[in-house]
Amino acid sequence: MLSTMQDVPLTVTRLLDHGMRVHARSRITTWTGEGEPRRRTFAEAGARAAQLAHALHDELGVRGDDRVATLMFNNAEHVEAYFAVPAMGAVLHTLNLRLPAEQLVWIVQHAADRVVVVDGSLIPVLAPLLPRMTSVQHVVVSGAGDRSALEGTHARVHDYEELIAGRPVTYDWPEIDERQAAAMCYTSGTTGDPKGVVYSHRSIYLHSMQVNMAESMGLTDRDTSLIVVPQFHVNAWGLPHATFMTGFNMLMPDRFLQPAPLAEMIERERPTHAAAVPTIWQGLLAELNARPRDVSSLAQVTIGGSACPRSLMEAFDARGMRVCHAWGMTETSPLGTVARPPAHAVGTDEELGYRLTQGRFPAGVEARLTGPDGERLPWDGKSAGELEVRGPWIAGAYYNGPDAEPLRPEDKFSPDGWLKTGDVGTISPDGYLTLTDRAKDVIKSGGEWISSVALENALMAHPDVVEAAVVAVPDERWGERPLATVVLKDGAAADFAALRTFLAEEARIAKWQLPERWTVVDAVPKTSVGKFDKKVLRRQYAAGELDVTRL
Amino acid sequence: MLSTMQDVPLTVTRLLDHGMRVHARSRITTWTGEGEPRRRTFAEAGARAAQLAHALHDELGVRGDDRVATLMFNNAEHVEAYFAVPAMGAVLHTLNLRLPAEQLVWIVQHAADRVVVVDGSLIPVLAPLLPRMTSVQHVVVSGAGDRSALEGTHARVHDYEELIAGRPVTYDWPEIDERQAAAMCYTSGTTGDPKGVVYSHRSIYLHSMQVNMAESMGLTDRDTSLIVVPQFHVNAWGLPHATFMTGFNMLMPDRFLQPAPLAEMIERERPTHAAAVPTIWQGLLAELNARPRDVSSLAQVTIGGSACPRSLMEAFDARGMRVCHAWGMTETSPLGTVARPPAHAVGTDEELGYRLTQGRFPAGVEARLTGPDGERLPWDGKSAGELEVRGPWIAGAYYNGPDAEPLRPEDKFSPDGWLKTGDVGTISPDGYLTLTDRAKDVIKSGGEWISSVALENALMAHPDVVEAAVVAVPDERWGERPLATVVLKDGAAADFAALRTFLAEEARIAKWQLPERWTVVDAVPKTSVGKFDKKVLRRQYAAGELDVTRL
Repeated sequence: MLSTMQDVPLTVTRLLDHGMRVHARSRITTWTGEGEPRRRTFAEAGARAAQLAHALHDELGVRGDDRVATLMFNNAEHVEAYFAVPAMGAVLHTLNLRLPAEQLVWIVQHAADRVVVVDGSLIPVLAPLLPRMTSVQHVVVSGAGDRSALEGTHARVHDYEELIAGRPVTYDWPEIDERQAAAMCYTSGTTGDPKGVVYSHRSIYLHSMQVNMAESMGLTDRDTSLIVVPQFHVNAWGLPHATFMTGFNMLMPDRFLQPAPLAEMIERERPTHAAAVPTIWQGLLAELNARPRDVSSLAQVTIGGSACPRSLMEAFDARGMRVCHAWGMTETSPLGTVARPPAHAVGTDEELGYRLTQGRFPAGVEARLTGPDGERLPWDGKSAGELEVRGPWIAGAYYNGPDAEPLRPEDKFSPDGWLKTGDVGTISPDGYLTLTDRAKDVIKSGGEWISSVALENALMAHPDVVEAAVVAVPDERWGERPLATVVLKDGAAADFAALRTFLAEEARIAKWQLPERWTVVDAVPKTSVGKFDKKVLRRQYAAGELDVTRL
Repeated sequence: MLSTMQDVPLTVTRLLDHGMRVHARSRITTWTGEGEPRRRTFAEAGARAAQLAHALHDELGVRGDDRVATLMFNNAEHVEAYFAVPAMGAVLHTLNLRLPAEQLVWIVQHAADRVVVVDGSLIPVLAPLLPRMTSVQHVVVSGAGDRSALEGTHARVHDYEELIAGRPVTYDWPEIDERQAAAMCYTSGTTGDPKGVVYSHRSIYLHSMQVNMAESMGLTDRDTSLIVVPQFHVNAWGLPHATFMTGFNMLMPDRFLQPAPLAEMIERERPTHAAAVPTIWQGLLAELNARPRDVSSLAQVTIGGSACPRSLMEAFDARGMRVCHAWGMTETSPLGTVARPPAHAVGTDEELGYRLTQGRFPAGVEARLTGPDGERLPWDGKSAGELEVRGPWIAGAYYNGPDAEPLRPEDKFSPDGWLKTGDVGTISPDGYLTLTDRAKDVIKSGGEWISSVALENALMAHPDVVEAAVVAVPDERWGERPLATVVLKDGAAADFAALRTFLAEEARIAKWQLPERWTVVDAVPKTSVGKFDKKVLRRQYAAGELDVTRL
């Protein structure tokens, strides 16, 4: 039996139209470093989005699902592109300006981007790569910058303001199927080529509703959000789309991401909410300790991207800034969990523990844990498995090029279509996720999993240990066993038996999880972003290059 | 270009599964009048919903999209039916127990309800009608009541608890297309047969998200909502579905809807939120004035169903209970607008004015005003037109029987599918709706609309006038003109010229809107629910039965 409800699609166009009308007065404030910030209302930004769409269509020939890329910081013009491009039926492709040059070129070519909108301040990033971005026909420069570096390639160069000036401030937006592509973002995994995630109008709309639910960020037009997390990083966690739904104001830092200007913009513009990764917050805290500022407006701080250390949460709490931890990934739009404590824990000793988990799943995210042998594990807060998720804003495949079928690698998607997150953890009976390891680093020993991260943290608590990395190595009897690699303090002796006893007695690691294989290294090999490079250790072990003691 | 997002349907099943797992500890508390309330967790209610589904399927033979009706107050068992019936793929039909008997029979037959679940306390309502409800094969009685009155018809009678006892507490819920029917509710218009609105899984899911957004009710698991608005009245404004999404607790009054028990349950159970129509709140206020209670927990009160008088809002505000006005109808699920003031008005003289409007449209509700000649009117706060709405939780047709095409009467739906609400009003530039009249009562004079309600309110402000009703009557020159019908105070003279001057000078009614035709009546004819029955007045005028003075 069919319902009698209207069949109305969930589209970015609807968010644009709603925001610029009902929340016409809400503001996008872009920091400019000196002088007054650039202030624009949603009504103005919406009118300019219409002008941009006319320019892209009439002047640059953007048609159908052409890709329009952005290489931009967080600013009002980037927001205009966020709405104009999907609303006209094209696909917004946000480029991560911190990627290695080769990957940027690869991604632009793979997506076949036809236009790149670039901040003037980022011309030095784009210019040397542009000759190899053969799909790009037009470059649109927003803001001041030396354009001469962009001349002389196959691409035509335009000025954003000149391009949109004088064009109509309304646009007859097409009707769009909600399952059509609206935006795309490539993940920058440590191995293999980047993988494109293509968000639909539907997924963005539903994700925006979730962001605005009271259990998530729950902002209204009385709020101002300092959006530090980049717009090229999973759509700035969905905040720019969510703003046009409920009218909360945006404070955009543009390229001023250092602690001092961030502290200054908080004091001057008085945001009530902010969103960023832990490193930004660590820096801000140090800045505030060195040069106190009035940051009393900032009641709520969303932290994601990597785990929030307890010390950081406590330091922010002490300043009246309530930290809310969240977890997600490019493939999850990104809102996967939000760590608001359950009602029964509020005001109790349990509260901080809940807030330090990755958080609780919303209704839109189904979750399950899969053990080493593919078995489903219970939500008991103890059984560790790989997290798999399902939901209307979660990827079920990767983009495989303009005319190719979407790609569904079996290590990333289960046969029934769930996303395998590559994260290993536990889920409590009340749906709180605690991540303990990456699936590729976990040690599969006799049908059970041993967390490399848990062993590392325990080892690094020993006074003689500077750093420790634990990796899986092959074992005839158990399949895999942990190899403990430690960097010792100057002058400390390599007493592995003592370290093993420490793990068992002080850190209460279960006996079957204790490493038999031990080695000392001068330093743990690291990736370009400073993470332990466990691939190198595994290769060195396989090649017999490590001096391993067996207890 | 297709997105790479998972294609996951938005279903009531998902709400059920999420609520009973992630919000397992949240509670449904049902008032019992004496002794302890009946307390049940979401986990328990979810398990019982599975048992109910097994009973309906295995014992009562419910299949496919069979309709299962409820004739129940707000209580935990009604919530169980809310989830069990749609999740198993069948359709929940909530019956309005206050409808005239003939309409109840008509509705049950029209929907072809196969099962009726009835509160024991409502057996006296059902029993005399049951012989004529020929589609009903099974009656399931929940709670105490005299079942003998139900015996001896074609229908088998079951006890709810006996029926579900011992059945499995999990159910292998089918995969459901989100556009399939989940629930239905008939509108009880003043003219013609009742019309069935069929909600889809999608519309209920999206509406639940909207209810939980911070700009709407914005509740979380720290809240308890006293749900006075009946579950048979547009799904209790969507609250029972919304609870399983975010885990706020439900306090259900069952049949104890009188001011005294409501005041007692607020004091004892300490809800943070409540939802009801104005008459309930008027009664509660009088009760609290007569017998003070500690109602300090109640921070937020949602009022809808009809306009909230200013005096009521101010009286609640003075007690620390913040009133939030909302507008909707059966056809809009019902959330159409919520009157949270815009940020710029908070704390100013404008704030109360905004809160007394019907409210602001959320992104999911598109709105337009249509004038007397079908023209679109601007959102300028002045131009009055019929409100038309569009959105994913708004009806686009009516149910026309089991095998018939949905019905789309042209007076209820525009050719492009928008719902014509039958309400006339204005929309401010920032999207706030103010309703001034019903479309059928508005006076279409020379291509402009005159609000009958505005004239009535102005007339009733005159000291000599007890009641006033204004209706449209045919006019050769203007099409229609207002006829003013007044009930005068004992001893007052019928000085129509003075009343007309009063309207122009004191009430500042525009000259072209002033009535020329006047009459005095002993009482304004009323409908069974106490509203002015303007049909009667128009008929009396047409038949020459009124003594009309023309100024």
